[in-house]
Amino acid sequence: MDIDKPYLLFLGDVKDQLAAKTAHGIVDWRPDWCVGQLRLPGCAADCGLPDMDIAQAKAKGARTLVVGVVNPGGVLADAWVDTLVRALEAGLDVATGLHKRLSSFPAVAAAAAKHGRKLHDVRFPDRDFATGQGTKRPGLRVLTVGTDCAVGKKYTALALEKELRQRGWKADFRATGQTGILISGRGVALDAVVSDFVAGAAEWLTPANDSDHWDVVEGQGSLFHPSFAGVTLGLLHGAQPDAFIVCHEPTRTRMRGVKHPLPSIQDVIDRTVLEGRLTNPAIQCTGIAINTEHLGEDEARSLLEATGRAHGLPCVDPLRTGAGPLADALASRFPRG
Amino acid sequence: MDIDKPYLLFLGDVKDQLAAKTAHGIVDWRPDWCVGQLRLPGCAADCGLPDMDIAQAKAKGARTLVVGVVNPGGVLADAWVDTLVRALEAGLDVATGLHKRLSSFPAVAAAAAKHGRKLHDVRFPDRDFATGQGTKRPGLRVLTVGTDCAVGKKYTALALEKELRQRGWKADFRATGQTGILISGRGVALDAVVSDFVAGAAEWLTPANDSDHWDVVEGQGSLFHPSFAGVTLGLLHGAQPDAFIVCHEPTRTRMRGVKHPLPSIQDVIDRTVLEGRLTNPAIQCTGIAINTEHLGEDEARSLLEATGRAHGLPCVDPLRTGAGPLADALASRFPRG
Repeated sequence: MDIDKPYLLFLGDVKDQLAAKTAHGIVDWRPDWCVGQLRLPGCAADCGLPDMDIAQAKAKGARTLVVGVVNPGGVLADAWVDTLVRALEAGLDVATGLHKRLSSFPAVAAAAAKHGRKLHDVRFPDRDFATGQGTKRPGLRVLTVGTDCAVGKKYTALALEKELRQRGWKADFRATGQTGILISGRGVALDAVVSDFVAGAAEWLTPANDSDHWDVVEGQGSLFHPSFAGVTLGLLHGAQPDAFIVCHEPTRTRMRGVKHPLPSIQDVIDRTVLEGRLTNPAIQCTGIAINTEHLGEDEARSLLEATGRAHGLPCVDPLRTGAGPLADALASRFPRG
Repeated sequence: MDIDKPYLLFLGDVKDQLAAKTAHGIVDWRPDWCVGQLRLPGCAADCGLPDMDIAQAKAKGARTLVVGVVNPGGVLADAWVDTLVRALEAGLDVATGLHKRLSSFPAVAAAAAKHGRKLHDVRFPDRDFATGQGTKRPGLRVLTVGTDCAVGKKYTALALEKELRQRGWKADFRATGQTGILISGRGVALDAVVSDFVAGAAEWLTPANDSDHWDVVEGQGSLFHPSFAGVTLGLLHGAQPDAFIVCHEPTRTRMRGVKHPLPSIQDVIDRTVLEGRLTNPAIQCTGIAINTEHLGEDEARSLLEATGRAHGLPCVDPLRTGAGPLADALASRFPRG
């Protein structure tokens, strides 16, 4: 799916900043795509964008109203439906990552049909995929993998795309989850794809490209997560990465949502090479990204340094120390013809 | 889904035996569930059951008309719809493994609603699943895994269930694909489950049970198949097998549908142990099943003997030599309290 830009970010009437995580992600990574924010009375979230109504956003060029908040239960509050209908009437498309399809709200569906606007349910794939073929494609691909879910794979990939582009390289972030899709305006939520087609969807998402073009692919789950390792493996086989970066959150003691202990970074390197070789025999680990947000500056710096030394790899916190060394490693290991 | 027995097998007007593969599988494994076959004029398939019409089948106690054939494209021929409607009118349920839902045929949907009958689209899960938890459950589980797709995983599991039951053990075949569901009357088509929920669906399919009860789980795909390995891994993690049997087809030179070479039996043993340990640290390979249908008797016997000796494991063709040695291995490795 391709979502028209720029966006008006809808924050509803949520009661805290955390509920606006998706909107914050979009503002962090695509500030130039955001004309403003629309908040209902009582909203406690704030993305730091100018507040505006639909008419003002339309005048500023907004093409899509993006629901940038999550509700308890992930459903669309009845009180929000009216805003969405008015956006559609004004000629905007609407995009959400919620669990329930926009078209399941009769007023929203009717307004979209009447005004010829698009509804983007980014959690649901908008097309069918073939099964994966495992055939090598031209172009370069780097995948973020993790010791667990929610350890910074999306942010690492976005930071690396930004760094590569600043260096003048051809690079595209490839979103595999709902927030990544809203941030990049396109992608496939792999966790919602029917299992037989996960590898095929990953192949579709990272098609043949120029020999010096990098797809920077957002990873999902972990090969060591008992709930989601199958999704991780299908993505690894379909993306057939030349390079991968291991992402890690050092304060976590159990894998997210289950009782399993975390694997070591080396475990993840070894298993990813072992499994990834099936579709790319030359796969290699090129760096480590650690989310150090819960550590002090000194502790963070010394952990990054020690981890990098232990593995003989560049090790960064993309948000604290930048993605430069990750890009340097790609430059030196994959020299441009 | 639970499909009421016995069945009337509908063979339509297909032009050869191969198109009736599902019906043949049901007759091979569940002859006592089949009251007869219903064939339209021009049908070239024959399952060896008495031919009968719907009224005769109803009189014989049939509860469900099972579409036991596949069409090119996997759709339901218009000419067949009339038979299905008449079956529903007569008080039978209808089950198919086709790609298109029965309810998408208006006449079928209307007849089912009017007469209060069930429509079983076994390719589509009829419930939602939780994500997998990876927590050890009581009960014993044996999974068939493969060097490739379509190498005999389903038949091996069915033969082993039959052997265990003949010995008086508690054992249940657990179907993970459409044909297996029609053969066993229940199960989940894992390849049609949304990827995030594959491990959870496998957990649901093989729930906590008596400590001397065997779930004999039908495997899917192969950890070495670039299209489907993610499904295979999700099933392995969710089923958390105590034992597994490697299934192999010795005349195959490439993995089905792709260009990849086949892994060795030892590769499959090693990788299955490595990955399976995540949810069952005691996982072990207990046997090998080789589909020797394309080999002569002498060649088959010597291949089975040599392969078993090379791996130090019982090695059988369940259809040629029986599943006895596979059951013997479970008996000796998992002695009953």
